[in-house]
Parts: sequence; C-alpha cells; structure tokens
Amino acid sequence: MRLLYLGDIVGRTGRDAVIDTLPGLRRDLALDVVVACGENAAHGFGLSPKICDELFEGGVDVVTLGNHSWDQRDIIPYIAREPRLLRPANYPPGTPGQGAIVMTDARGRRLLVVQVMGRLYMDPLDDPFAAARREIEANPLAGPPGRGVSAILVDVHAEATSEKMALGHYLDGRVSAVVGGHTHVPTADAQILPGGTAYQTDAGMCGDYDSVIGMVKEPAVERFARKMPTERLSPAGGPATVCGIVIETDDATGRAITIAPVRLGGRLAATMPAAPAPAASGI
Amino acid sequence: MRLLYLGDIVGRTGRDAVIDTLPGLRRDLALDVVVACGENAAHGFGLSPKICDELFEGGVDVVTLGNHSWDQRDIIPYIAREPRLLRPANYPPGTPGQGAIVMTDARGRRLLVVQVMGRLYMDPLDDPFAAARREIEANPLAGPPGRGVSAILVDVHAEATSEKMALGHYLDGRVSAVVGGHTHVPTADAQILPGGTAYQTDAGMCGDYDSVIGMVKEPAVERFARKMPTERLSPAGGPATVCGIVIETDDATGRAITIAPVRLGGRLAATMPAAPAPAASGI
Amino acid sequence: MRLLYLGDIVGRTGRDAVIDTLPGLRRDLALDVVVACGENAAHGFGLSPKICDELFEGGVDVVTLGNHSWDQRDIIPYIAREPRLLRPANYPPGTPGQGAIVMTDARGRRLLVVQVMGRLYMDPLDDPFAAARREIEANPLAGPPGRGVSAILVDVHAEATSEKMALGHYLDGRVSAVVGGHTHVPTADAQILPGGTAYQTDAGMCGDYDSVIGMVKEPAVERFARKMPTERLSPAGGPATVCGIVIETDDATGRAITIAPVRLGGRLAATMPAAPAPAASGI
Amino acid sequence: MRLLYLGDIVGRTGRDAVIDTLPGLRRDLALDVVVACGENAAHGFGLSPKICDELFEGGVDVVTLGNHSWDQRDIIPYIAREPRLLRPANYPPGTPGQGAIVMTDARGRRLLVVQVMGRLYMDPLDDPFAAARREIEANPLAGPPGRGVSAILVDVHAEATSEKMALGHYLDGRVSAVVGGHTHVPTADAQILPGGTAYQTDAGMCGDYDSVIGMVKEPAVERFARKMPTERLSPAGGPATVCGIVIETDDATGRAITIAPVRLGGRLAATMPAAPAPAASGI
Ligand SMILES: [Fe+2]
Ligand SMILES: [Fe+2]
Ligand SMILES: [Fe+2]
Ligand SMILES: [Fe+2]
Ligand SMILES: [Fe+2]
Ligand SMILES: [Fe+2]
Ligand SMILES: [Fe+2]
Ligand SMILES: [Fe+2]
Repeated sequence: MRLLYLGDIVGRTGRDAVIDTLPGLRRDLALDVVVACGENAAHGFGLSPKICDELFEGGVDVVTLGNHSWDQRDIIPYIAREPRLLRPANYPPGTPGQGAIVMTDARGRRLLVVQVMGRLYMDPLDDPFAAARREIEANPLAGPPGRGVSAILVDVHAEATSEKMALGHYLDGRVSAVVGGHTHVPTADAQILPGGTAYQTDAGMCGDYDSVIGMVKEPAVERFARKMPTERLSPAGGPATVCGIVIETDDATGRAITIAPVRLGGRLAATMPAAPAPAASGI
Repeated sequence: MRLLYLGDIVGRTGRDAVIDTLPGLRRDLALDVVVACGENAAHGFGLSPKICDELFEGGVDVVTLGNHSWDQRDIIPYIAREPRLLRPANYPPGTPGQGAIVMTDARGRRLLVVQVMGRLYMDPLDDPFAAARREIEANPLAGPPGRGVSAILVDVHAEATSEKMALGHYLDGRVSAVVGGHTHVPTADAQILPGGTAYQTDAGMCGDYDSVIGMVKEPAVERFARKMPTERLSPAGGPATVCGIVIETDDATGRAITIAPVRLGGRLAATMPAAPAPAASGI
Repeated sequence: MRLLYLGDIVGRTGRDAVIDTLPGLRRDLALDVVVACGENAAHGFGLSPKICDELFEGGVDVVTLGNHSWDQRDIIPYIAREPRLLRPANYPPGTPGQGAIVMTDARGRRLLVVQVMGRLYMDPLDDPFAAARREIEANPLAGPPGRGVSAILVDVHAEATSEKMALGHYLDGRVSAVVGGHTHVPTADAQILPGGTAYQTDAGMCGDYDSVIGMVKEPAVERFARKMPTERLSPAGGPATVCGIVIETDDATGRAITIAPVRLGGRLAATMPAAPAPAASGI
Repeated sequence: MRLLYLGDIVGRTGRDAVIDTLPGLRRDLALDVVVACGENAAHGFGLSPKICDELFEGGVDVVTLGNHSWDQRDIIPYIAREPRLLRPANYPPGTPGQGAIVMTDARGRRLLVVQVMGRLYMDPLDDPFAAARREIEANPLAGPPGRGVSAILVDVHAEATSEKMALGHYLDGRVSAVVGGHTHVPTADAQILPGGTAYQTDAGMCGDYDSVIGMVKEPAVERFARKMPTERLSPAGGPATVCGIVIETDDATGRAITIAPVRLGGRLAATMPAAPAPAASGI
C-alpha cells in the first residue's frame, strides 16, 4: 500500500497548497491513502467542519487533529458523526470522536490509522504508548479476518523528539509507520527501524516557512523578545511548502518497504520520491 | 567564508565518525571553519578536557556546549582558560568561560561565533535574544576595523522550533547564520531568510540514529512506557551519522550565499552539498 | 473517626520528630488512624524498607509515597508485599504496589486511603481525577456491606494549588477528606467544602524549615542564583516541625465534622486542635 | 515600621472585602504601609486603571502585578506614569513601568518595595535573584542618606515553594521581608529567618475560597477532568477572605521584629495578630 502523510496544514495558504498539489501527488506517486493533520487549518487555530469537508473533497482520506483539536467549537458535533476525522486516542474516555479508524482503500485493503498525542512539554493526558498499543491490539497487522489490517499508520502529535523516537521503537514491528507532527518543521531522519516500521520524527507543516512555525513573524518574535501583549497571531500568507512523508508497505506483512519525504513549493528545498514502477500501482 | 556546523556529538560513535570524516569534509567542501557542539561527547553527558582536545586536534575550530555543559566537572577549569570552547552566552554573569569568540581563519578573516540557549521547555536562563544581540553589537558584521567581522554564526541550543525560528528572524540580516542544536534530530528546513541570514532549525546529532536521541533505546523507551527506574542511559554504539550544515557567506557583506545540510554514514539517507568551484577555496 | 495526615517526612530530623511526637498526638487527639507521606524520609530521597518499618512501628498506619517513590530501589520488592505502603494510584497498570488500601481501625471501622499524583508541572501520568474516582467507586462511603467504608481519605501529591483545589471539589461529598502534599509548605486554607469533604491544599513537610523545602539551603540557593553544579542536596538537620492535618468524620455518613492543622516543634508557629470531648474517643 | 502585604485580590468580591476591611486594619494594627497584589482584581484577569485608583483610594499604598500584568491593556499607559504601581523588576529592559519604588511613610521613613517574578513552572524571564539584588543595592537598608532605606519589602510572585524559599534565604539579612504571592493559597510558614528577614511563602488570595484559586469551580474542575473547552473562567462571587501578612520592622536596622498572618472573612479560619502596644504606633 502507498500512503502519504501530510503535516499540520496551517491556514489558507497551507490548505490551498495541499488542495492544489494533491491530485498530482496521488497520480504521480500512485497513492492509495492520504492522511493529513488539520489542527491548524482554520486560520491557524483548529479546524472547522467546512474546511474539513474541503480537505476530504480535495483528496484527503483521513484528517487528524492534535492539541488544537477544539479551537473551533463547531468541530465537536461534527467529529461525533464523522469517523474519518480523528482526535488523539489518549484523550479521556468520553471525549467526542474517535482516535482511530479502520478504512478500506480502493482495492479493498484495510488500513488502521491511529493518532496519539505526546505528553512531554505538552498538556497532561493519559499514556499515548498504552493508547497506541490498545488500538493496534484491536486491529493488528496480519490478524484474523475482520480484525486484521494490511497496514497501520500511527500519527504521533508531540513536541519532544525523544518521546516520538521512543514511541517509534516501542511500536517497531507492530505497525507500518510512525510519523510525527506538531513542531511544524520537517525532520530529515526518515528511516525504516530494525523491526520494519517506517519512522520520521516530524512531517513538518504545510504552510509558509517565512514565519514562526507558520504564523506571521513580527508579533511572534516580539513575544519572545519582550514580555508584552502583541496583536493576535495569524497565519503567514506567503506561498506554502507542502510537507509530507510517503511510505510504501508490504501488504502481506504490513512492514514498510520505503519511506521518503515530500516537500514541494514555498521556501524549502524541494524533494520528491521517484515514481513507483507501474506494477506497484495496480493489478 | 565556508563554514560547517556539526550538531551534538553523542558518545564515542559520534566522536569517531566526526574525527574520521572531518579531514575529507574540510578538503572536499573547502571549509574555512568548523564549529561543533560537544555537550554529549563524553558518554552522552557533557564534555571532558581530553575529548575536547581530541575534537580540536581532529579539525574542529570551535566547540560549543549546551544544557549538558557541566556534566563533567573538570571541564569547568578547562573552559576558564580555553576560549575556543563556548558555553551559552546567556548563562548568569560570573559563569566560567565565554559565550562568544572572534576567531581568525587561515586567510585572516574574522568570524564571530556565539552560542545562546533557549528557554522554552528548558531551564530558566536570561534572555537569549538580548544576549545574542549584545554579542553581535560588540562585533558586528561589516563593522569598523578591529570590531567588525566577516561572518557571524549563532548556535541556538533550544528545544522549541518556535523559539529558534523567532531568533532566526530576530537576527535576520545581522548575522550570517543561525543554526540550531539540542533536539538530536536534523531538520529539513534549511533556507536563507529574507534578510540574508542562513537558517536551519536543528543540525541533528552526530550519533547512532537506532536509538532514542542517541541513547540506547530499550531503557529510554521503558522510561516513557512505565514510571519505574531503569538502568542508566548510555549512548547507543552503532554506526553514527555525521549531521551538519554547510554555509557559504559573502565576505564583503557577511550575508549567506548558500546553506545546505550534510549527512554521512549510519542509518540516515546521505546528503552532501556539491563541491565548490575551485576559485571559491582560494586565491 | 479521627484521622491524622502527616505531610512529607524529610530526612532523619523529620523521622525523629514524627516518631517522638506521635504517641502523644495519638493519645491527646484520640486518633484512630495516622497516615503519613514518606517519600523523602530516606535522606530526602525516597523511602527504604527499614525506615518504612520504623514508621509503622512508630504508630503510622499507612505510608504514602509520591514523585520520589522509587528513589530507593529496595522499596520496590517491599511495596509488592506490604499493602500499608501506597504509591500513587495513577501510575501505569502493572506498577508494583497499590494506590489504595481499605484498612480497619481498632474499633472495626473501615477506612479507604487513596493516593493520587497531580500532573500540572509534574511528570506525565494518567488522570488522577479518574483514578481517584475509580478507587472510591470500588469502596464507596456508606456503600453495601463488604464494599462500603466509614471514611475515605484522599492524599493528592501535587504541585499546583489549582489542581488540588479542583480535585477537592471534584470529590466533594464523595470522600471524607482531600489532603495535599509535595510542596513541603503547609497551607492555611483548611476548610470543609460545601458537600462535606474536609480539604487542605498542603499539609506541609515534617522537616527543618530553616532550609529550602527541607534541604540544606546554601547549595539549594546557589542552584537558583547560578547555573553551575553544586554539592548534592541533603536534608537540613535542624529541629523539625511536625506538620499535619487532623480530621474528624461522622461514621454514619463519612462526611467531615472538623478539620484543623497541627504544627509542633521547630521554627514554625505551633498550633494544635483542641482535644476532643472524652466521649469522642470511645465506648 | 508596620507593614501589611495583601495577596492577590481576585475580582469584585476580593476588592470589596479589601476596601471594606482596610480602614479597620490600618487602625487596629497601626499600619504604616499597605502593599497589595492587584494582578487579578479586574474580573480575575489583570488590573484596570479605574480599579487601581480605587485600591489607592481605599488605603493601599503600593499595588503590585505579576504574570497577569498586561491582561488589561489600558494598564500599560497608566503604569508608565504611576510609580506606585509595580510590575516584576525582572521583566526585560524597556518594559513599561517600574519594578521597585522608594516611598516615604507618614512619619518620613523610607521604604523600598520590590516585586520580582519566579521562573520555575512559569514563563521565561531574566533572573529574579539578580534583579532583587540590583534593586536592594541601589537602595540598601541602613545605607547612606538619600539612598538608604528603613525597610525593604520584596514581593516574590512565583509558583514553586523552593524558588521562594531560596530567594528568602538569598536575601536574608539584606531585606526586612520576603513575601510570596501567585498560588492564591495562604501558607502557614511565617517565620523570621536567621539573618532577620521575615518570610512567608505565600500570602494567599483575597477572594472566595469556595472556588478553584478564586475562579468559579465547575468549569475549572471540568478543565482538569476532561480535555474539552469550557465556558470562560470568571471569579467566584461568594464572600472573600482577606489574606495578608503583617510585618513589624526595626527602623534602626531594617530587620523584622515580628511576622504574622491576617485572615478575615469568608470561609477560612480567621486569624489576627495582637494589636501593637500604643507606643508602637507613634511618637
Ligand atoms: Fe500541535
Ligand atoms: Fe500544529
Ligand atoms: Fe542539549
Ligand atoms: Fe545534546
Ligand atoms: Fe513530592
Ligand atoms: Fe516531598
Ligand atoms: Fe494571582
Ligand atoms: Fe500570578
């Protein structure tokens, strides 16, 4: 299976870049499934139902959230009835929405997508390691029919590199990929861990990199240099770089075959994996 | 001027990889100056005088520290008499050692190297923005003879991507480069900011990436998944990836001309900037 | 039932003061049960089996721990077989020991003691609100025979006043008392909340208050004023103040009737509740 | 000199209680100077010019702020011209307002009041220890005419008990009193340190204690127990407890003679120091 994970989409420029770029990416990279983090899509703060619908229409199969999950209040009733929108699985019991989904791709293969949120330098939450394990035990790789899945993608929304790498190793061999988000900066550490799990610490944001993690830079800089109120932060509006991670998995084992970054447009140096051989995309 | 910044060197495997690789890099990339962070060189925790000497002998011109500055106590008298070893400039007044150095390269050009440490999700310290500005005002780019320098490299040792990007923009146009360290994961966001300052959020570590930020993975994972004591953390010993950033600056203005990552060896995908045209390295 | 909760016992001076004072307190205050936090009893860091035994012999019925639970490794096998020693109930599943105990006093009344640990400004842990609720639902006030208890004492080991007050209100009416520890400073906010639960944000430490939270002051001060290594912290050895909270509960309802601080010895102003009327202590 | 320090005034109920109580306190306790923290006086968030004027008219001589300094924007131009309103002295250079004031009481004695803000578990700031020392070196106890003062009160607005106790010892013998604020809970650890400085970790709030640190309890509790947005926090409106600290100093040496808590009204147990002997209040 060929998966694309897109990092935190920030504001209009990020949405536009994703929606403009995705059809070409789906075709050129023969993608089966696209997962994207939408927690900053609504003017930098949260996600609205309308924008989430636009992402689905634009070719995103599963949208994830994060620490900005509830910045837009009308997403709360929306997520209660939309299984393709995930919030972290380690939110307290009773939180609206789900932290995992088993979806089926165009060729009938089942994929489990899970989101968990880290705790180091973040808000208190229940254990993301335990939450991830619970979800994959419910729908394991190569499990029995009806419960088993062909691939598992875990989105870890977290600040600390140590916590993400630790989760990668904790799940190594039990999932197809552990991909990180939240820092809004792509990391250059894509690798396949010894047990067969693809791993990258952070996908980076889909947004304008002439900014402070996607937000207009002057007030953001001022907040660090002085300790006075500034104007409200808002997304930088320059051309966005679409940042993501492409993973190819072995349908028989669920292990990763390749992992490679994608970066297109905006200020960052571009990179694209080679197109797959024709056979990979069909028959 | 052609500069190389190497990220946190972790343990013996990191030191060996740096020392083995550096002569070739100096030659192939026509490097004028090499700066490296040594805060984890001594078995993951701090830097000893002996190891610092080995780094200098191995071709590193300036060594920086960070939050692990004083893990090895005998570095304290050593730094008091070794100006090529820097600790963060925003430590309290009276702290042993210096946070900046003006050094002269083989062709007589003056370079200011500054290290500051971030505060977000880190220990309390005085303002790194103010400290950096103080240091560059003492020795500005294109300043008067005796005070002016041809290039300025600022090493920001910090956790949060936002704080590093904010410092990059704060110094944009006033320094040649702002390069980050501390997270032990290289970022893929090298760019030249609008004012001419080269920027990359983190250089990544020089260490074994089959690990949790350079340390043996099993106890590190266990510390996240359980809340019980484990064996002491120690550096992973597999082959290291040398991770760094190459910056070329314009001697007349101090602005950056190019910035590009270097990654060699170990588990990460390799990358090297193209060799410079012969004229760039002399005459 | 008449309960005494003693705050974090710090080092030898704290242990000595508790053991010397407790027989008199038990008698004068007609105490039925004594609970004490022992997480700093072993030279400031953790609790050893030997010291825990001494506390039990000295008249403490239940000992609790906290963020220093495992500083002394030999407490781990000890807690596995000693139900009167509690560690926070919201440690991960599988952690040795228990977070709650139902004990029976000399008159046959059942008391539930629970410890939970806060998360604000502390290490990541599972939800203490949910953990506390689980424990009290298993053994509720005025519950059916065999499960119901006459009183419930919840020890919340936490840093932030807001988190402790919130837990107090969350449990108000469902437990007899919520008493806090960990900051090593007694608070002067003892009250009975509207639902009948006695509450005090922090019991304070049993230790020497000419110190920095119980530890020798010079190196502790130096750690704030400079950012250099100091000698290892060790407990201050001056006379300790025994700090605790006395709560009287109604056996029929489990609600609190009175709450009052106890402070004896050392540098702090002394305070003692009035002795109960004779009838309260028996027959 | 006889000083009263009042802890964080929260909302209308806190303001009303302070203004109603202060005339009686000034008279009964023969107070020379009253200092109060106003950072939560404006509906829990910051301080408005109008409310600050009311506090001055009500008998407060110096008002301090804290981490909520700028919640009300119109306090910024106000503080620039009102020296009796202090913000933390360790804000960055260039911040509007002052962190210290030398005032003269009705009998012509000079008093230095300083506010600093802690850093542990709080926002990054410059060193409060160094800032406090700078201010007291500019106007020392028993210094030369024109610079020397008869008493020094340091208000430390901080979260961690350890940081406040460390500052107390750091300044012991150099100031008359170190009194803490910010946690909104009074501590019961008033003492005179060995060098003669009066110390109490926290004065507590002037507000309604049937609350979560002064705010309406239901939404505050819900924020801990769930991770969903709630209604905006607002001050609890029940009767407030006025919480403060009374310190008597020796005019010749600046050392403290006595320290005692004041708590009046609302839900907490009341306490008042004995009235001073008539001679203490004049002639
Ligand atoms: Fe996020
Ligand atoms: Fe984000
Ligand atoms: Fe570091
Ligand atoms: Fe490091
Ligand atoms: Fe503790
Ligand atoms: Fe403790
Ligand atoms: Fe406050
Ligand atoms: Fe505050």
